[in-house]
Amino acid sequence: MATDWNRISHHAMDWAYEAGTVIRESFKKQLTIETKSNADDLVTNMDREVESFLIDKIRKHYPEHQILGEEGSGDDVQSMEGTVWIIDPIDGTMNFVHQQTNFAISIAVYHEGEGKVGLIYNVVNDEMFHAIKGNGAYMNEHPLPKLEKVELEKSIIAINATWITSNKRMDPSILIPIVDQCRGTRSYGSAAIELAFVAAGRLDAYITMRLSPWDFAAGKILIEEVGGTITNLDGEELDMLGKNSIFAGKQNLHQYILDEHLLNDKK
Amino acid sequence: MATDWNRISHHAMDWAYEAGTVIRESFKKQLTIETKSNADDLVTNMDREVESFLIDKIRKHYPEHQILGEEGSGDDVQSMEGTVWIIDPIDGTMNFVHQQTNFAISIAVYHEGEGKVGLIYNVVNDEMFHAIKGNGAYMNEHPLPKLEKVELEKSIIAINATWITSNKRMDPSILIPIVDQCRGTRSYGSAAIELAFVAAGRLDAYITMRLSPWDFAAGKILIEEVGGTITNLDGEELDMLGKNSIFAGKQNLHQYILDEHLLNDKK
Repeated sequence: MATDWNRISHHAMDWAYEAGTVIRESFKKQLTIETKSNADDLVTNMDREVESFLIDKIRKHYPEHQILGEEGSGDDVQSMEGTVWIIDPIDGTMNFVHQQTNFAISIAVYHEGEGKVGLIYNVVNDEMFHAIKGNGAYMNEHPLPKLEKVELEKSIIAINATWITSNKRMDPSILIPIVDQCRGTRSYGSAAIELAFVAAGRLDAYITMRLSPWDFAAGKILIEEVGGTITNLDGEELDMLGKNSIFAGKQNLHQYILDEHLLNDKK
Repeated sequence: MATDWNRISHHAMDWAYEAGTVIRESFKKQLTIETKSNADDLVTNMDREVESFLIDKIRKHYPEHQILGEEGSGDDVQSMEGTVWIIDPIDGTMNFVHQQTNFAISIAVYHEGEGKVGLIYNVVNDEMFHAIKGNGAYMNEHPLPKLEKVELEKSIIAINATWITSNKRMDPSILIPIVDQCRGTRSYGSAAIELAFVAAGRLDAYITMRLSPWDFAAGKILIEEVGGTITNLDGEELDMLGKNSIFAGKQNLHQYILDEHLLNDKK
């Protein structure tokens, strides 16, 4: 029997809405915060609670599927064969802790390596970005239009100021001319929200240095569904089982920045 | 008769909500966009429409007050004597045009140079940050707590990547160590929202190079009401009738960054 992606999408959205309600309620309580490997990597009770909630739902309804998740209570996924859920219960944990806004639930379902269902739920602003492959992408009930062309000089690019200072991942001198030439830069502190904003045309591109599959798996589906491009900073396909640099954007802008800036030194 | 700041605050909020409704409706229509002096300085019909709406209301109810506004249909305000309304109908015009989100209406009322009433209304997310001097600050109906101390290493600072590249306003080498030492940076593209976020404790500090009074007048009232500090980058009081660099933040962090970074070269 063919997999019913529509049913899976509805399930995923229902569960994200339900988790969102729990999260909003939690802001009335005190959060217990622990630190993982370092101070920037905050984990909250809520992160684990939401991941457990999602995993329980997935295992109950789709016992044959695998689950790849940030908090480690999913499966030890070694390949993208079969059907794999890739989930981030709270993307933007630092925002979650400091701001109680600007974080998202990210859920993606891949089948034989291909993105089939993706959603990014900006919980506090109640914006559900969602897509089923081949059926278009949506923000709540509004269809997201196909992305149009934009010139670098007229573009808004999400890039964190950190990458423009000396850092161990990227030579800032490659990125600085991009920042200088674009119309403006933004940084929201949640990769899922930044990718959803690219899909929605609110950002023309997004550049960052090191994301895990749960950070970008749903965003990739949304962006590709509206005709955008997402690769690593070398223009290569993303590894769905490892860490990647990320460069997402409108197709023509992505190509232009790759040719003129990111790959220019390597010609 | 003593001025009723409570009445003025309620008027300002009513008008901001009414303008917000008009703006949200406008997203269903096509926007007509013109460029002012340069491509970064987008002006829309809506900017002028909202300013006219606010000015009409103020003139009708408070004919003896002066009005300082971005779009130039206010008064030619030469001093802060008497009562002066300082309004920005749409702060974050680039976001308004590109994103249809992340912009705000900013309204401040000063009396003999002192901030009395301030509001910043994040229209799309329906977050009304408001304060009456001496009565505390609020986000919607929630009181905003007094700001607590934070160390630079644990802080989230709003700063645009632009200021970390070579620019004519600031030597990036002064700002780069701040970016390197803080926990994370953000940039939302609306000064009013960034200042409201400082008041709400969502950001620990905000640094930018050149704002006009309508960009920061309401934010200054909100921030000071919760015990935060706002000055220019030299730690000096802001000129309410001219352009200023802006450095807002939690009191201890503001002092620390001034001493250790911004004024360090000038010792």
